[in-house]
Amino acid sequence: MRRFLLLATAAAVTLGATPLAAQSVDRTQTARIIDEGTTHSEVMLTAQHLADTIGPRMTNSPAMRLAEAWTQAKFAEWDLRAVHKEAFDFGRGWSIVSSNVRMVSPRPVQLTAIPIAWTPGTNGTISAPVIVAPIKRARDFDTWRGKLSGKIVMVTLPDTGSEPSEAAFKRYSGEELAKLDQYQQPTYDPDAADRRMKRLDFAKKLDAFLKAEGAVAMATMAYRDGKLVSGEGYTFGVGDTPALPGVQIAAEDYRRLARLAKIGPAPTVEISSDVRFDDSDRNAYNIIAEIPGSDPKAGYVMAGAHLDSWVAGDGAADNGAGSAMVMEAARIIAKTGIRPKRTIRFALWAGEEQGLLGSLSYVESHLATRGSPSDPKLTGLALYQGWSNRWPITPKPGWGDLAAYFNLDNGSGKVRGIYVENNSAVVPIFREWLSPFASMGAKDVAIRKTGGTDHVFLQAVGVPGFQFIQDPLDYDSRVHHSGIDTFDHLKGNDMRQASIILASFLVNAANADKALPRPPLPTKPVTTDPFAYSDEEE
Amino acid sequence: MRRFLLLATAAAVTLGATPLAAQSVDRTQTARIIDEGTTHSEVMLTAQHLADTIGPRMTNSPAMRLAEAWTQAKFAEWDLRAVHKEAFDFGRGWSIVSSNVRMVSPRPVQLTAIPIAWTPGTNGTISAPVIVAPIKRARDFDTWRGKLSGKIVMVTLPDTGSEPSEAAFKRYSGEELAKLDQYQQPTYDPDAADRRMKRLDFAKKLDAFLKAEGAVAMATMAYRDGKLVSGEGYTFGVGDTPALPGVQIAAEDYRRLARLAKIGPAPTVEISSDVRFDDSDRNAYNIIAEIPGSDPKAGYVMAGAHLDSWVAGDGAADNGAGSAMVMEAARIIAKTGIRPKRTIRFALWAGEEQGLLGSLSYVESHLATRGSPSDPKLTGLALYQGWSNRWPITPKPGWGDLAAYFNLDNGSGKVRGIYVENNSAVVPIFREWLSPFASMGAKDVAIRKTGGTDHVFLQAVGVPGFQFIQDPLDYDSRVHHSGIDTFDHLKGNDMRQASIILASFLVNAANADKALPRPPLPTKPVTTDPFAYSDEEE
Repeated sequence: MRRFLLLATAAAVTLGATPLAAQSVDRTQTARIIDEGTTHSEVMLTAQHLADTIGPRMTNSPAMRLAEAWTQAKFAEWDLRAVHKEAFDFGRGWSIVSSNVRMVSPRPVQLTAIPIAWTPGTNGTISAPVIVAPIKRARDFDTWRGKLSGKIVMVTLPDTGSEPSEAAFKRYSGEELAKLDQYQQPTYDPDAADRRMKRLDFAKKLDAFLKAEGAVAMATMAYRDGKLVSGEGYTFGVGDTPALPGVQIAAEDYRRLARLAKIGPAPTVEISSDVRFDDSDRNAYNIIAEIPGSDPKAGYVMAGAHLDSWVAGDGAADNGAGSAMVMEAARIIAKTGIRPKRTIRFALWAGEEQGLLGSLSYVESHLATRGSPSDPKLTGLALYQGWSNRWPITPKPGWGDLAAYFNLDNGSGKVRGIYVENNSAVVPIFREWLSPFASMGAKDVAIRKTGGTDHVFLQAVGVPGFQFIQDPLDYDSRVHHSGIDTFDHLKGNDMRQASIILASFLVNAANADKALPRPPLPTKPVTTDPFAYSDEEE
Repeated sequence: MRRFLLLATAAAVTLGATPLAAQSVDRTQTARIIDEGTTHSEVMLTAQHLADTIGPRMTNSPAMRLAEAWTQAKFAEWDLRAVHKEAFDFGRGWSIVSSNVRMVSPRPVQLTAIPIAWTPGTNGTISAPVIVAPIKRARDFDTWRGKLSGKIVMVTLPDTGSEPSEAAFKRYSGEELAKLDQYQQPTYDPDAADRRMKRLDFAKKLDAFLKAEGAVAMATMAYRDGKLVSGEGYTFGVGDTPALPGVQIAAEDYRRLARLAKIGPAPTVEISSDVRFDDSDRNAYNIIAEIPGSDPKAGYVMAGAHLDSWVAGDGAADNGAGSAMVMEAARIIAKTGIRPKRTIRFALWAGEEQGLLGSLSYVESHLATRGSPSDPKLTGLALYQGWSNRWPITPKPGWGDLAAYFNLDNGSGKVRGIYVENNSAVVPIFREWLSPFASMGAKDVAIRKTGGTDHVFLQAVGVPGFQFIQDPLDYDSRVHHSGIDTFDHLKGNDMRQASIILASFLVNAANADKALPRPPLPTKPVTTDPFAYSDEEE
């Protein structure tokens, strides 16, 4: 039975409040930050090393281990302090060594495809006819039972394609920026966590079903046209390893296979994929470094970005860019010799792609816990399911020390402003802090709440967590998680600007007379639409 | 020494001529054509067979042989007459069986790459360090001599990428269509043929240089971003087979290799490509079919499209679409039982991608010859070099019989109108012929001259050759010659409309009381800018 509750806003906002006395920005410091962040910028060197030399950094993969070591060494080289890593339970790592997918009959075609993350390799070459068996729900199993043995099962219903009616690359217009500053009432969906759990559960059931039916591999269709593949599809679960190799095939190639299968005979496809599981250390690690504050009792401010990446490209825009900009802000502040009142802490998170696990671990270790999970055996990703919907929130002793958190995870676009995440008390403060950067294109303060990355769980325990507004570029349209998330799609001028503004915000937050106004501690919300029905099955 | 000549327009136009008495369109016939072309359309079945089942149809490849046989069978099945093929000298065929390109150090990355057309395979797997050696001109050879032994030579200067500021997919606005109807004075570049010859010559020299230096393979960078590859690069010459395997690497992958090579050590790349040369029959074939006219003395009208394709995709938009629409127009007219006065001939050309060789061969066999080539040994593609700049034009007995030629080779976009190719005397006639199709979006008659496909050589001997204005869709932006030139990027509604309009134009042209006005026979032009200098080296 579902519970219907009345609405109470999770993060109450004070609209139309009279501006606080504007906090002054030390423009001499700003000028030093700008000089260091332009004339001596290293942000593109950092990003290039992460993307090109290290490459995709799936959590607990060999490349992520290299990144953990290299970023700590860099922080130390820049004279950051308390450089260390903090472990959390994650599970095995996964990476691709090689893969090759071909149609061999009715004619030879080299297909664009990629192993689906966390699925096993083929242990040599497998060759089998395909079958188009769209399976979306458990009840579809009955339709296909007994028909899949020895087949490569194409489980996505092929569509007919879509045509891009907008340019792939864009910057925000003033009008679009203005739209971001429109208050949106918080909504509360008490079943969202359940649905995520069901998806995870269904992925496991599908794998088990296909294995039991004697299928030799699963194939899905990439969700973008234009031969872009991502390898997304299987929902990672700690301790779960799918039984069946899976490949995601480029939309054009998948549709061709599906058409040929329809007119028959079914094409034969050859898959050879070599992937590596890594169980040598099941801990994942957040990387932490600090610039110590002059006042040990003043607490700390923080910037973070996830260092882990998805696997298809090089994790350049997502989130080598954010990691490099956080590191660059650290380097800039350290190099300028600015001594902040509060400590400035820098975090490079792991496990973001599997559910913001690194930042969640930080919250649980340093800031606050939430009520027990419904199932005490749940760990890792499963622990995250429903985490924000557990009560009570129990702050830890360090909860009040963290005065502000700034997150970067929206690609390499320049900063156009900042989201206050419904925490409207900071609007006048952030307007003041942005004032030196209007000529660099950053001037908008937007009320909007954002989600999907590592500030979420800090906000969920009442810490003022923020994200910057960044120009979208081609992040969503083609780069995010695809094979072209590569260094050449990063914009150097944008990243230098964003690093400077992040450094400046951190210094301002660290030196402000008063800590940033905190939002109300979240309280148990009620559903916004108690009379709505929802489709149980997606 | 270059010759500077005075201007004489190649195809004089009569602007502002008073409209001819409008030729009447038999709207009862039009209605039957529309019914057959919608309710009973087969154009997408035809296109699907060409693109999916047969696949890319590089001239003289095994797939092109299948297409030659299948299209003749289809014409015969639809009761077309005089179905046959006409041979011309072409040379060996070339096709890809498989290819796999990987970076193996400093870390494993599956690269997106394709063999460069007409280059040999690797005969197994080759593994070698890359070297970035941008070579654009013969004088660059000196820079790299002695440095390339044992290397995979990356000959393209890597750029930093570009960002698409327009949508990939577009249809013409009314304003854009109006711009197409602006007269452009013919220009004459007497050195164009020389420059093409030089490029061909340079490609051969580069191959020989790399081979002599002991390089193991050549690599070029794809010219589009977004992991689209085409395999273009080596200029085909009859009888020339490059010595060195060549691969074109996706821009993102090429740039990553170049950056890593710059910081060193040079990455090692593994190439395994299996390509097939086919020397079993060095003739290429145009496919011809007819609907006989009722009046044997009235001559004939003609529609054509090239059946051969490029190799990276399936040759769907280029030019499976055009071929399927020409075939569909034939089917529609045959099915409606309309008996034209003039014979309607349909041609599916070969060798278009290597220089409009099939249509050139038709012109030389049936319509007119032009003065001897400077070198009597020149054949095939070389014969084409400078062909339009040889004098005199000597019409053959059949020259006057061909009353009009309509070409389709601009993708699957619907017809928005027709280019009169500077032959302004037909403007009022075509306006009348388009009049039933305004509600289908086709109504513009544009004066502009177009080039680049098979109507060019017919125009070059004074035959009225035309192309339709088609919506551009994503033909140029991403489909043309790329791996996504696949069936799913074709637009069925557009192709049905275009087939209908082509059928209608053919019937109108075949039944018109008077043959279409012919443009003046081209005469030797003079350069439009005798005082210009040009850079000898490109």
